[in-house]
Amino acid sequence: MQQLQDLDELVASIKDDLTSGAAEIALRAIVVLQGVLDASANLPPERLKDKLAEVCAALVSCQPAMAPVFQLCNKVLLAVRAVNSSVEIVEVGSKSLSDFEGHLCTSAETIANRALEYIPYGELVFAYSFSSTVLSALLHARSCGKVFRVVCTESRPSMEGRKLATLLSDGGIEVVHTFDTALALVLSECAVAFMGADVIGKPGLVNKVGSYPLACICKELGIPLFSLAGTEKFVTEERLMEFEKHERPGAEVWDEAPPGVQVLNLQFELVPFSMISGLITEDGMLQQSDIDRYLANQQVHEALRV
Amino acid sequence: MQQLQDLDELVASIKDDLTSGAAEIALRAIVVLQGVLDASANLPPERLKDKLAEVCAALVSCQPAMAPVFQLCNKVLLAVRAVNSSVEIVEVGSKSLSDFEGHLCTSAETIANRALEYIPYGELVFAYSFSSTVLSALLHARSCGKVFRVVCTESRPSMEGRKLATLLSDGGIEVVHTFDTALALVLSECAVAFMGADVIGKPGLVNKVGSYPLACICKELGIPLFSLAGTEKFVTEERLMEFEKHERPGAEVWDEAPPGVQVLNLQFELVPFSMISGLITEDGMLQQSDIDRYLANQQVHEALRV
Repeated sequence: MQQLQDLDELVASIKDDLTSGAAEIALRAIVVLQGVLDASANLPPERLKDKLAEVCAALVSCQPAMAPVFQLCNKVLLAVRAVNSSVEIVEVGSKSLSDFEGHLCTSAETIANRALEYIPYGELVFAYSFSSTVLSALLHARSCGKVFRVVCTESRPSMEGRKLATLLSDGGIEVVHTFDTALALVLSECAVAFMGADVIGKPGLVNKVGSYPLACICKELGIPLFSLAGTEKFVTEERLMEFEKHERPGAEVWDEAPPGVQVLNLQFELVPFSMISGLITEDGMLQQSDIDRYLANQQVHEALRV
Repeated sequence: MQQLQDLDELVASIKDDLTSGAAEIALRAIVVLQGVLDASANLPPERLKDKLAEVCAALVSCQPAMAPVFQLCNKVLLAVRAVNSSVEIVEVGSKSLSDFEGHLCTSAETIANRALEYIPYGELVFAYSFSSTVLSALLHARSCGKVFRVVCTESRPSMEGRKLATLLSDGGIEVVHTFDTALALVLSECAVAFMGADVIGKPGLVNKVGSYPLACICKELGIPLFSLAGTEKFVTEERLMEFEKHERPGAEVWDEAPPGVQVLNLQFELVPFSMISGLITEDGMLQQSDIDRYLANQQVHEALRV
């Protein structure tokens, strides 16, 4: 049981991870789920399935805006449903986890290749918040010999923009960094802008708060804005709206606010498809109307239904 | 000389004041200039005029985006030009200072009265950055019995939004506060938005960085945005563009940035007239085309020419 308590702590650490993108958090969830399988292999099969379902439900509800965490958990739970021994559950579950990890990595590579043509040589490129997909696309372009500079902003309150700036700089890309209110000042000098997405559905793309202002200014200034995201981000409208549940304590924003001041700490917001120039996925540039095709035969495990 | 050195320190403290609006900084400049007149009354007239011109030039160049500081200094220098004794310089200069202070106060009162009809009963009202003119208009509306809530954001990097939140709350107004990237999320709930302005000219209004994103989102969401500002903010295009000189050290934004990351710290930006719904001054709602009329006969003292 000691090991399982540690896993509960791991769920809590994923809940408090506000600087990673959705794909990165899904990779962390894979480690948690592999840990559950390894630590619970001696449980009877039904108890093992219940334990897995319980951890999956906890992971999905602690990061309700992160579609890849939902897809990962759903795939694992559906995969182990058909098998009956604990050994098989561990085997099938582990394969499902590593398949998903493989998909995420291949998908990021394909997207990086597809994004290459939109990264102009010698220009300033804007990147918002922290998306491992955007980071890998920019590093890939640099490794292909493209020279460009990246502009990014802090992304209050979690400041994951500093993480992006540091990793880009480590990767040999020159970075210009400023605070979020200077978004329009720096965007006006950029040739193109990129963002990731945490979850995508018919109403639009949900991403870190600040993505709507980014889209709005890009639209006004005529700067193309692309979202780079794998199709594992596609979910139903009902699942998409779960992102609104992600509210953090106001004290993280202002811990000594006067009593008459209510402090809001909302982390995600919706950007309609009409506000971006394109969504670049591993399957190419996709539209709002393509989403249904990906969801057509999707089964959702009962532990994860909204 | 001891007293004059203290005044130099006062100039430095005005340079580092990043949380006050333009009218408020002009009031602080009045204190500095009165100090110069009082401390230098024993100087020969020409040296007293030179001293005054030197301090005025230092004040204007330390806050190049603050039109009222320029207007104040220009008025004082032009007023003392015609008199020849040190006693008269102190007398005429002091009168000029107190006249300007009186104008600022009357102007803020008139603007508060004019703004009243744009503050809707029972609604959420957005206010950006810190403008003493906007603050006084909101407090005035509250004292007239209007009940409404104000939403404001931090306004990184100087966080003067917290100062606004605190003063509104002290004045009995309920406040909702959040970080700057959540601007669109909160604006979508607001009926109207207000900002101040530090300097206004034919190209537009210069205000704290973040004002352009505010205007852009208000335009997209169809929320009226008014700038409240006295006509002492009106300047020539050449003077207006001086605001671009106000650059602060990058270390104030990120003191441990990696070597490959260039950190920008620009404090002001331009918002074209076409991006706001109206400019409310002490002389009523004015247009871009009205500016020339105010500048027609304006003389600029040689110590303050661009």
